Amino acid sequence: MIYGRCAACKNQRRRCPPDCIFFPYFPPNDSQRFAFVHRIYGGSNVGKKLQQLPHYVREEAANNLYLEAKCRIQDPVYGCVGIISKLYQQIHDTQIELAKIQTQIAFHKLQNPQFQAEKSNFNVESNLNSLPPQSNNSMGQFQWPSQATNWFN
Amino acid sequence: MIYGRCAACKNQRRRCPPDCIFFPYFPPNDSQRFAFVHRIYGGSNVGKKLQQLPHYVREEAANNLYLEAKCRIQDPVYGCVGIISKLYQQIHDTQIELAKIQTQIAFHKLQNPQFQAEKSNFNVESNLNSLPPQSNNSMGQFQWPSQATNWFN
Repeated sequence: MIYGRCAACKNQRRRCPPDCIFFPYFPPNDSQRFAFVHRIYGGSNVGKKLQQLPHYVREEAANNLYLEAKCRIQDPVYGCVGIISKLYQQIHDTQIELAKIQTQIAFHKLQNPQFQAEKSNFNVESNLNSLPPQSNNSMGQFQWPSQATNWFN
Repeated sequence: MIYGRCAACKNQRRRCPPDCIFFPYFPPNDSQRFAFVHRIYGGSNVGKKLQQLPHYVREEAANNLYLEAKCRIQDPVYGCVGIISKLYQQIHDTQIELAKIQTQIAFHKLQNPQFQAEKSNFNVESNLNSLPPQSNNSMGQFQWPSQATNWFN
C-alpha cells in the first residue's frame, strides 16, 4: 500500500493510518505541498494545528498554512508580512489620490455654479462619499505598521 | 546569570551562550515574543531560519516571524492569508469606485463641452490616469486568489 500513503507519511517514511490527519489535505500526488509546510512549521506542528481545528475548516487551514509556508520560503525575511505591507502602501496611495480628486471636484463646483444643477448627471462627489465600507475605512485602517500591529494585537 | 538568558534559552531552560542566535531578537524581558514563534514554528526552526540569514536582516526576519505567529494564533484557520485576502477585496472595491468616477467624469465632459476648456482648474481625469504605479496596477494585480497564487508561485 506504499502508493496509498499521504505525502506526509511518505515524507516521514511511515505507515499511513486509515485516520491519518494529513491524508485529506496532503495527498500522495503533491509531495511539494507537505515539503513546504514541513520545512517552515515542522510536520508534527502542522498535524497538531490541524487536530486542534474542527473538521470543516481543516482544508482551509491546510491551504493557508501551505500559502504562508511558500511565501516564507520565497521571502525568508518578510514572508506574508511583506505582501501585507505592500498592500497597505498601495491602498494608502490610492486613498491619497481619491482625496485629491474629491478636493478638485469640490473646487470645480465652487468655480462653476451651474455644476451644482447637474448632480443627476454628475454625482462624483456623492460617489466618493459613498465608497464601500471597506474603502471608507481605508484611510483610517491602512496605517502601516501601526494598523498592522492592531491586526496582530 | 539566569537573568541574562534570552527568552528562548529561558523557555528551553538552558544556558544562554555568548553567541546565542536568539539573544538579540528575543530579549529576556519579552517572553511572549519567543513563546509565540515557538508555538507556531518550533524554537529550533526559528533558530535555523535566523542562522540561514545574513546578520543585517535577522532582526527584520524575527519581527516578521513574530507577527505571522501572532496572526496565526489569533486566526488559526486563515492567519496572515486572511488579512491579505481582506486587503485584496478592499482594494478591488476601491478600484471599482475609481472606475465609476472616471466614467462619470468622461460622461460629464461629453455633456458639457465648456468643461474641456477648464482642464487647468479641473484635471481629475488626468489625475485618475496618473494614479501612482502601485494603484495603476491595482485592477490587474488585485485578483484574489489568482493573483495571490502568483505571489506564492
